[in-house]
Amino acid sequence: MALTEELAAHIGAANVLSGAAMAPYLPDWTGHYTTAPLAVARPCSTKEVVACVRAAAAAGIPVIPAGGRTGITGALMTTGGLLLSLERMNRIRALKPDARLAVVEAGCILSTLHDAAETQGLYFPLWFGARGSATIGGALSTNAGGSNVLRYGSTRGLCLGLEVVLADGRMLDLMGELHKDNSGYDLKHLFIGAEGTLGVITAAVMRLVAQPAAQATATLALRGLGDALGLLRRLQAATGGAVEAFEYMSPSYMRELARHRPDIRQPFDSIAPCTILVEVAAPTPEAAEAHGDGRRPLDRLLEEALAAMLADGTLIDAEIAGSVAQRRAMWQRRELAAEVMFARKPHIDTDVALPLDRVADFLTAIEPRLAALDPGAEPMAIAHLGDGNIHFTVYPGRDDPALADDVIEIVEELVVGMGGSFSAEHGIGLSKLPSMARRKNPAALDVMRAVKVALDPGNLMNPGKVIPA
Amino acid sequence: MALTEELAAHIGAANVLSGAAMAPYLPDWTGHYTTAPLAVARPCSTKEVVACVRAAAAAGIPVIPAGGRTGITGALMTTGGLLLSLERMNRIRALKPDARLAVVEAGCILSTLHDAAETQGLYFPLWFGARGSATIGGALSTNAGGSNVLRYGSTRGLCLGLEVVLADGRMLDLMGELHKDNSGYDLKHLFIGAEGTLGVITAAVMRLVAQPAAQATATLALRGLGDALGLLRRLQAATGGAVEAFEYMSPSYMRELARHRPDIRQPFDSIAPCTILVEVAAPTPEAAEAHGDGRRPLDRLLEEALAAMLADGTLIDAEIAGSVAQRRAMWQRRELAAEVMFARKPHIDTDVALPLDRVADFLTAIEPRLAALDPGAEPMAIAHLGDGNIHFTVYPGRDDPALADDVIEIVEELVVGMGGSFSAEHGIGLSKLPSMARRKNPAALDVMRAVKVALDPGNLMNPGKVIPA
Repeated sequence: MALTEELAAHIGAANVLSGAAMAPYLPDWTGHYTTAPLAVARPCSTKEVVACVRAAAAAGIPVIPAGGRTGITGALMTTGGLLLSLERMNRIRALKPDARLAVVEAGCILSTLHDAAETQGLYFPLWFGARGSATIGGALSTNAGGSNVLRYGSTRGLCLGLEVVLADGRMLDLMGELHKDNSGYDLKHLFIGAEGTLGVITAAVMRLVAQPAAQATATLALRGLGDALGLLRRLQAATGGAVEAFEYMSPSYMRELARHRPDIRQPFDSIAPCTILVEVAAPTPEAAEAHGDGRRPLDRLLEEALAAMLADGTLIDAEIAGSVAQRRAMWQRRELAAEVMFARKPHIDTDVALPLDRVADFLTAIEPRLAALDPGAEPMAIAHLGDGNIHFTVYPGRDDPALADDVIEIVEELVVGMGGSFSAEHGIGLSKLPSMARRKNPAALDVMRAVKVALDPGNLMNPGKVIPA
Repeated sequence: MALTEELAAHIGAANVLSGAAMAPYLPDWTGHYTTAPLAVARPCSTKEVVACVRAAAAAGIPVIPAGGRTGITGALMTTGGLLLSLERMNRIRALKPDARLAVVEAGCILSTLHDAAETQGLYFPLWFGARGSATIGGALSTNAGGSNVLRYGSTRGLCLGLEVVLADGRMLDLMGELHKDNSGYDLKHLFIGAEGTLGVITAAVMRLVAQPAAQATATLALRGLGDALGLLRRLQAATGGAVEAFEYMSPSYMRELARHRPDIRQPFDSIAPCTILVEVAAPTPEAAEAHGDGRRPLDRLLEEALAAMLADGTLIDAEIAGSVAQRRAMWQRRELAAEVMFARKPHIDTDVALPLDRVADFLTAIEPRLAALDPGAEPMAIAHLGDGNIHFTVYPGRDDPALADDVIEIVEELVVGMGGSFSAEHGIGLSKLPSMARRKNPAALDVMRAVKVALDPGNLMNPGKVIPA
């Protein structure tokens, strides 16, 4: 029996797509990749995932797990593998407000969980532009980051328990809801960030947090990026660590935003040397309560922290959101980054992490190196500055396909020399395999290979991704 | 050349101990175990650790890494292995206040790092009774918990980077200082909590946090344990999540404390049904500042949160620490737990984790089961209640060596049935191997075995621990 027929017997013919029916699953929204699976399977339960993985293993066909397909590293590419879409495993199995956790299936879309948590006065703190399409399983498989990592950590830190279907089709139940569990190796951390190369994540226990009583959101014009870290420290000290987001938008990004989306209002009369979007949560319920004058201690706290920097000229201008609509507009400027970046072609994009105090150094030092390589190149930076994570994009000045590799090489060299990483939050997939081969230390690569062989001896779980050959 | 001679050539004869010179390293402070190594090696650098591991591997001799030797699970037991003491690798390589991290060697004692962080206005939030002897490497190898996990997480969550010497003697450098790094599998999580079975941890990058501007510490007498979680939620809400510790002391513990240490003042005139030690940090610097009346908003906040419960009778009595000495006395009552527990023999000790809302159920449900097994048995509980972590001890009523296994079985059965874990924070070592064999799911054990074989094919890294045969 052909694999597709066997799959149909397990999960229903309507959920095994081939030929033209696969069309919606093939394009990659970056435009860089088109995958060519043998078939697409859409199981609706862990049991069905087990059946699919077993059938594929028996046929020697690779399995490529897919979530919301919002990744940008080509992690879903295959020629002849089985694309295993978790989209129908999208239930919230349980929401436990007292325990502050949710038990969710891998295909659950982030915004579904955001909405469900909100009904209980809670917040699921994984927040990025693609939250309306990205799934819990995809976020876990890539250890996704986003804008709230500064306060709440990456996806990994939000995960208490995990359910995985292994390469041999066995179900691995690690669905603990505990805050402490030292019973042997903590295996969930192996599968988080493994991009489906060690097994298929089918469900997870995710932490929820108290919804902040209120937020204060501001867009700031600074004299320079060098002053931003001091500002962050001041805000952290004033709020006892309640800064939820601290995002940097470079002048080149603000210009590109104005060009691509002239409908979006710019925050200041002229583009600042350094534009920061900051969001601070109320450290106590009292800080969120409006007083007689309509003002909240939270706003005063933000204003006071900014006042000294306005007085000494470090801060050129500041706009504090006075309404939900104003807050949304501030975030929209930041969250259009992916759209803006991909709209202009060709582009060379990177996703690097640096120690917090080296971000400004990196952006200064990269410029002459880039100019030496391509005098017409235009760099553009957006950063989750509180995490040291820069999305550094280059629009090349000349048409030369080899240029991308050269640009990535000089970026990586500088980043690694400053103690940084060539991959902060997007993962490796296919696109960063050359970087893994060049930059990751050989002992680490060997350990990864040993683990991969141990867990997937047939090399059938998303083969060819993450670990270079 | 004999192994000891070869080791002496690498690290100096004074640092290779055998025979009577090993005496200080052999006893286990629980009194349950005595290890019998071939020799004790005391390397002072990663390079020397590499030399020791290589020499041992060549001779086919197991390596048992040792830190402060404060563990209670027999993880250092060996007959004829090499006890590798990291005690001389005790440097703080770097303290980076701006980046809020410390680069430390494995043998660094926790309190050394506490003191160093304090000089910079920072806090290293790993805090438990043995902090004056336990080392960073030991804490990482066991993923130690303690009293501040509620706010700051376990050792795992505090670790940004790791340096490990692998079974083949290669050094694995994972010493990143980054808050985001998705460059392949996050290998550090394999070694954290592995109790030396996958390699020797030689150094780490550890997160530091801002020193709380102030703390309010109180000992509370509650009508019952069932009311404690509501109190915790109320305090978390009032402080925006700044509860640092929430510790439960059972009546039986308070009695045992009075018996063993009559010099320690009891908090209340009579022993309460539920005694809680709570510590709350100031959510903002303002909350820590004494006003004209000498009182701090932080104290008022705590008093207000308690007032309603005093009014409705949930809270019987409360003592708020008015000085550093009073705070210390409150903590001493809690931190004498290990001394109190081990002083009375025989005892059967467990270290279990439960979902937060099942702790009270467990303590109620275990009593008749225990009585059925041994009518004279006296249970005693101490809990990191905010983490659902109970140290449940039984003083047996009859002298029967088989009783310990039976008691552990009924505790485990109840715990696992409630979604808990038989090992919360102390680890597995030798003592909990039977529990691993009985209770851990077979797929998880198989994956652990596969990882162990992949990384330590010769089974020379602390063999026979963590994973049952």
